[in-house]
Amino acid sequence: MDALQELRRRTGELADLSGIEMLLGWDQLVMMPHEGAGARAHHMSTLARVRHERARAEELGALLEQLDGAELGPVEADIVRLARRDYARARRVPEELAGEMASASAEGQEVWQAARAQDDFAAFAPALERNVRLAREYGRCVAEEGESTYDALLADYDFGLRAQELRELFGALAGELPALVEAAEERTPRRTLEVPVGAQRAAVSGTLARLGVDGDGWRVDVSAHPFTAWMGTGDTRVTTRYNDGGVESLLSSLHEYGHALYERQVDPALARTNIGHGTSMSVHESQSKLWENHVARDRAFAQVLAGELAKGGFQVGPEELHGTLVGVQATLVRVSADALTYPLHIIARFELEHALIEGELAVGDLPGAWAEQMRRLLGLEVPSDALGCLQDVHWSAGSFGYFPSYALGVLIAAQLWETLSAELGSQEEALGRGEVEPIKRWLAENVHRYGRRLDTRELVEQATGAPLSVEPFLRYVAPLAGG
Amino acid sequence: MDALQELRRRTGELADLSGIEMLLGWDQLVMMPHEGAGARAHHMSTLARVRHERARAEELGALLEQLDGAELGPVEADIVRLARRDYARARRVPEELAGEMASASAEGQEVWQAARAQDDFAAFAPALERNVRLAREYGRCVAEEGESTYDALLADYDFGLRAQELRELFGALAGELPALVEAAEERTPRRTLEVPVGAQRAAVSGTLARLGVDGDGWRVDVSAHPFTAWMGTGDTRVTTRYNDGGVESLLSSLHEYGHALYERQVDPALARTNIGHGTSMSVHESQSKLWENHVARDRAFAQVLAGELAKGGFQVGPEELHGTLVGVQATLVRVSADALTYPLHIIARFELEHALIEGELAVGDLPGAWAEQMRRLLGLEVPSDALGCLQDVHWSAGSFGYFPSYALGVLIAAQLWETLSAELGSQEEALGRGEVEPIKRWLAENVHRYGRRLDTRELVEQATGAPLSVEPFLRYVAPLAGG
Repeated sequence: MDALQELRRRTGELADLSGIEMLLGWDQLVMMPHEGAGARAHHMSTLARVRHERARAEELGALLEQLDGAELGPVEADIVRLARRDYARARRVPEELAGEMASASAEGQEVWQAARAQDDFAAFAPALERNVRLAREYGRCVAEEGESTYDALLADYDFGLRAQELRELFGALAGELPALVEAAEERTPRRTLEVPVGAQRAAVSGTLARLGVDGDGWRVDVSAHPFTAWMGTGDTRVTTRYNDGGVESLLSSLHEYGHALYERQVDPALARTNIGHGTSMSVHESQSKLWENHVARDRAFAQVLAGELAKGGFQVGPEELHGTLVGVQATLVRVSADALTYPLHIIARFELEHALIEGELAVGDLPGAWAEQMRRLLGLEVPSDALGCLQDVHWSAGSFGYFPSYALGVLIAAQLWETLSAELGSQEEALGRGEVEPIKRWLAENVHRYGRRLDTRELVEQATGAPLSVEPFLRYVAPLAGG
Repeated sequence: MDALQELRRRTGELADLSGIEMLLGWDQLVMMPHEGAGARAHHMSTLARVRHERARAEELGALLEQLDGAELGPVEADIVRLARRDYARARRVPEELAGEMASASAEGQEVWQAARAQDDFAAFAPALERNVRLAREYGRCVAEEGESTYDALLADYDFGLRAQELRELFGALAGELPALVEAAEERTPRRTLEVPVGAQRAAVSGTLARLGVDGDGWRVDVSAHPFTAWMGTGDTRVTTRYNDGGVESLLSSLHEYGHALYERQVDPALARTNIGHGTSMSVHESQSKLWENHVARDRAFAQVLAGELAKGGFQVGPEELHGTLVGVQATLVRVSADALTYPLHIIARFELEHALIEGELAVGDLPGAWAEQMRRLLGLEVPSDALGCLQDVHWSAGSFGYFPSYALGVLIAAQLWETLSAELGSQEEALGRGEVEPIKRWLAENVHRYGRRLDTRELVEQATGAPLSVEPFLRYVAPLAGG
């Protein structure tokens, strides 16, 4: 079938261009000398334009028409189904709008960096107004019948989910968590552990090696903010950072490992197709959170981590280390939040961005609304916008609909972990020995191998036999509050 | 002028795509985990196809037609002139031929690696036959009126030079050098110096820092074969390698520095245009050879290098170090040849590839012809094809016409150095102090800033006031032979 061959060729090219974009981004944050930033911005924008042009090429539409009603095997049928979806969305966005969004995103991030440094929300407001306006315009372009503007934005990150479902899930969480936080701050308070950078490095490297990270197909580097890049088969790169003291590097390296493992365990038959990568932001985040919350923060696994720290010359008892990894305290900053308060930060952002996009909140009223959310959800007063609504990059880059995936990921991770533990039996003993192969295999079989063939909702239901729910997460955090 | 703007936009995109190709190549050789090789090959081939498509797009031809007879400033006129040249060449190559050459190149390199490892020329011969056949076909497509097939290939590396000129220059060299080699082997014999890798690293890093290499706009890394990559303004990356013992890393890091400096000192007004990089392979090689032969091998500069080695804990007298850097011995291997015998290796290859392309030598007769060249030019017997005609990658990759630039670079470097020394005065004293700013400025002013605005011949004549000649090089090497 010639049309199918040609479609695969074209989607293979698009997959290559995405892999190249990943490499440009990775290099920029890990290797590039800083004076190369201007040239790199040109590289990125040219490559994005090339990819956008090819993603909406009329020849692609003609191929999809030729494939109407064609007899296809199950994998090919999914390749064609997702190609239709992606093509339709790409065609609905006028080129001028795509161009304006790209430059508003770049400029917004620049303005935001300066505004945050000077704690000056007013300086950022016009850029945010512009991003909100463009996001609404974009959302109206791509919205399907029956979707709200926000739903349409959400579909870029988590296809098929609706704002209404998120409100229900997050509403249930927001009702339960604040009381748990209060109890956990008493029972499992945040504590600090001063771990020298050298011991952190040794422990990160030793722990990742136990999980299968080797130099043949992986890199582990340092960057200002930890992230993961997957260039293609056999080339996965995670980064971490080493603060003076603290154990954040242990949590973040397992978090990034979860993202990386997901991409590595997609069915090899899907490589270089349009369905050969993680299906959504929330499922991706569920994979990172599974390794962060359910492995790195596991009581028995603390023995392994303590052992690796000891090899790096730092002695700590597993119990003390575990207490440090799970300690709870409400704070103002999302990125350093603990496992229990983290979803509350996300719920606050979801409600605010939903209101911005649906026209229920004016940009000028954001700082006050932010303060109100922090008071209601975390019981905290916000002393400055730098520690408030200026702390995250997302809105400055024009990303609306992305935040929910962070909280959904936490919920999905807990739900998957319960199912995995029910099917394989408790992993405590194995984790105490650092044995994770059964976990990797279960995830490959039930989550990873599908790539984009199942959307978030279908994947969760098929893997766990139940709709997405907050209960597993509430059961996971209950012990922190003495439950 | 709209057409000019649009032409600049399109050539800017092509420049970006070239920068991205550089990055992919650099990453592959310096950073990539080896299991990523398959995915990277796809990335490279997709990107090459995208670039080729855009370089021969009909819209580009239409723009150039619109610009016929337009009033243009001098820079714009050169942008249009070179765009016409590049477009015409790109259009003359049928897409099928370009595709077949790309795959023959990739397959040829694979076959060659295995054949060289097993010293089995017969296993390589069919791939070489195919590359020769395709190169001849390509040459006939792109040849201008009055050009031989080989001339047409040469134009990809050194536009405007002709095989006949090379025969004359190289013939003169081949007449003089063998006797000089014999004398120099007596008077300035090759000797070895066992320098620990740690001291080499310290000396490379200290020496490059003196030349202006800093972390803001440069990277210095390690790779199996030293090379230089320039991604764009402010992002230049050189590599070197550290053999156990030896001083090759000092020579090769200054060699790569010369390539890098050329690109960095092109007029910033030409950045992201089609004329904003080095003009030809031979001029590029002249810049690397200038820093290798005339700085790193300079008698006074040996004081600087010895000082940097001493900081790395290795003590050696400047005279002894200088003697090691300039020692002469005829050997079979091009890449480790000394400054005097190096051009003879190139002359041999030029004559052989010229004969292959012009149909005067059959592939099957290559090993014998190679042995004959080595006997005639270097007085050596070739014990195996692995140390003979299988030693270089170029022909396996389908590159014919590239080798001459190595010898031309040596000649041009010597000619530029004589002019520079005449205009600025002897650099001996300054080099003894490690002072190279006047050299950098002279090169920027007389060579680098032009980018592609002058072709090899015009550039050399303008910078030195004389046609390309072998005399300066012969004067440079004479002292090695006691002259």
